[in-house]
Amino acid sequence: MSETLAEIGEFGLIHRIDKLLKRESVQTETTFLGIGDDAAAVTPKEGHEILITCDSLVEGRHFLLEYINFLDLGRRAMTVNISDVGAMGGVPLYALVSLGLKADMNVRDIEEMYKGFVAELNPFKAAIVGGNITQVESSLFINITLIGEIKTGKSVLRSTACVGDTILVTGYPGEAAAGLDLLLQTNTDKVSFDHPLVKAYLSPVHRALEGQAIATSGLATAMIDTSDGLLADLAHICQDSGVGAELTRKNLPISKALKETAISRKKDPYEMCTRDSDDYELIVTCAPNNVEKIKDIINKISTVPITQIGMISEEKENFYWVLPDGTRQPFTPKGWDHFAEKRSSR
Amino acid sequence: MSETLAEIGEFGLIHRIDKLLKRESVQTETTFLGIGDDAAAVTPKEGHEILITCDSLVEGRHFLLEYINFLDLGRRAMTVNISDVGAMGGVPLYALVSLGLKADMNVRDIEEMYKGFVAELNPFKAAIVGGNITQVESSLFINITLIGEIKTGKSVLRSTACVGDTILVTGYPGEAAAGLDLLLQTNTDKVSFDHPLVKAYLSPVHRALEGQAIATSGLATAMIDTSDGLLADLAHICQDSGVGAELTRKNLPISKALKETAISRKKDPYEMCTRDSDDYELIVTCAPNNVEKIKDIINKISTVPITQIGMISEEKENFYWVLPDGTRQPFTPKGWDHFAEKRSSR
Repeated sequence: MSETLAEIGEFGLIHRIDKLLKRESVQTETTFLGIGDDAAAVTPKEGHEILITCDSLVEGRHFLLEYINFLDLGRRAMTVNISDVGAMGGVPLYALVSLGLKADMNVRDIEEMYKGFVAELNPFKAAIVGGNITQVESSLFINITLIGEIKTGKSVLRSTACVGDTILVTGYPGEAAAGLDLLLQTNTDKVSFDHPLVKAYLSPVHRALEGQAIATSGLATAMIDTSDGLLADLAHICQDSGVGAELTRKNLPISKALKETAISRKKDPYEMCTRDSDDYELIVTCAPNNVEKIKDIINKISTVPITQIGMISEEKENFYWVLPDGTRQPFTPKGWDHFAEKRSSR
Repeated sequence: MSETLAEIGEFGLIHRIDKLLKRESVQTETTFLGIGDDAAAVTPKEGHEILITCDSLVEGRHFLLEYINFLDLGRRAMTVNISDVGAMGGVPLYALVSLGLKADMNVRDIEEMYKGFVAELNPFKAAIVGGNITQVESSLFINITLIGEIKTGKSVLRSTACVGDTILVTGYPGEAAAGLDLLLQTNTDKVSFDHPLVKAYLSPVHRALEGQAIATSGLATAMIDTSDGLLADLAHICQDSGVGAELTRKNLPISKALKETAISRKKDPYEMCTRDSDDYELIVTCAPNNVEKIKDIINKISTVPITQIGMISEEKENFYWVLPDGTRQPFTPKGWDHFAEKRSSR
């Protein structure tokens, strides 16, 4: 069976997806009006606010079909969005999925992609409640809108970091970018999909549970996911909070796999850890006396490491490395220059 | 000044858009967390539920840049979504805008598009609260998620039409498709952008205010917008409500412009009125004794005509034309066949 989308048509596909979702999805307890009306209706629980985020993955830009199967692609697209809701401290509830699909696509592949969406939503008892399908001639796109909820006032923003706060990060940022490099630099038939860095790129993990636990504790001053890379996202916190940061270079969490790859490719592992990368770790800031409490909270629910990498400083939007000999070296996060230039011309 | 997106970069563009929105947008009264965090936070008013819809416009499929300017494109993309919220009876509140943009695009064009979004949102005091920008190599895409609200229990669904209900439709469906035909059949330099059918295609109008008034009255049994065309969307109502429909052919609202074009092109004006078309009129069903009340409600707030075109019948998913001589002629809405086939194989 290798039907194409052209053969079954848009309505045929919607019907297939409807059946698949009924079969594969955990049913949510909250009432909602699902797929099939002009809009989806959502009632938040009392004392809660609704969180809404959307993110697009575009073929050729965010994924390459030579390297990723449709199940993983679906998981990845949903993970990106779950990470955004989780980085506010929220719980995912509903998703709307807009797809740009090619007519010659195999229907089974599209179904696999939906299985990927559902696989990531089911642990939260979250459901796909709407969306739409469009035909495209060239690059596929997947646009997901994810709706979550959080107790009113519990959202952890990126604009509220305080001078003197400790900066923490979960996991090993930079692994995904290194994995993508490995894929692109290797012949397709020689790619090792078992390589931990390749896995980090193809099957990224969100830290939504960790984000929720941190938000519930009320102990963090700011939080963001590292979807733009460790430094770029720390820069977002600093910009929005009107502060600077000092990072202790030797404390950066560099995984064994990243270190080995850096050595074999004669690259700087610190640069690899901090650059633009499709990881979905959390950067958290908190008062120094809350660091151990936050670590305990994470350790209770997760095996992901959480590492102190520096502190928030007073010098607005200035960034320094603290080197092993104690000297301070200024640096500019990538992508920052440009923005700063525009800001100063306001 | 003809800067391209490549020249100012993603952050530069986000900054520009941020400034534009601050300048051009009516500020909403409800508090929300706007552009710039991982997700937008929304608190519905007490006794209200949230409506969420999303729709994509893809270059080459939903619009052709030879024919539409960026201001109109922005208005059109937002209108499509406002129509969906309005067809439930809701009021738009917030939008998230995901764009797939080409690097060589003129920044001013992108700003014009945002002005179009804002022009449609401002009458509702609705605001853009998030989104994202992605680079694409070929076709532009615009994906908008629109969040609205409605008093709990007041949504008018497509699944609740009753046997014996009168079927009403606003405006003149089919004009947009006829306008697109005119554009495609005319040399670019000879296109008359003032032709009413061309205008209907390029600058479609939503009926959200009418939809809200109808929902508030509680008099309609079902409602949908005609974004797929009059017959296709009536078919959606019938399918979801488990009913059929009888349409009185001579009652179909056919505008003077559509009639003239049909005659000059030797086409059937009834077919042109009912086929797939990018109009955003409303199909409303109601008990026969509420027809005049609904007409009055519409006439009080709007100049759009509202026309009785038929009635909901018992024969599940069967469709008949009632011809001028009183005979009944069965028909199958386009796109229906296929879906019916899949349904029967459930």
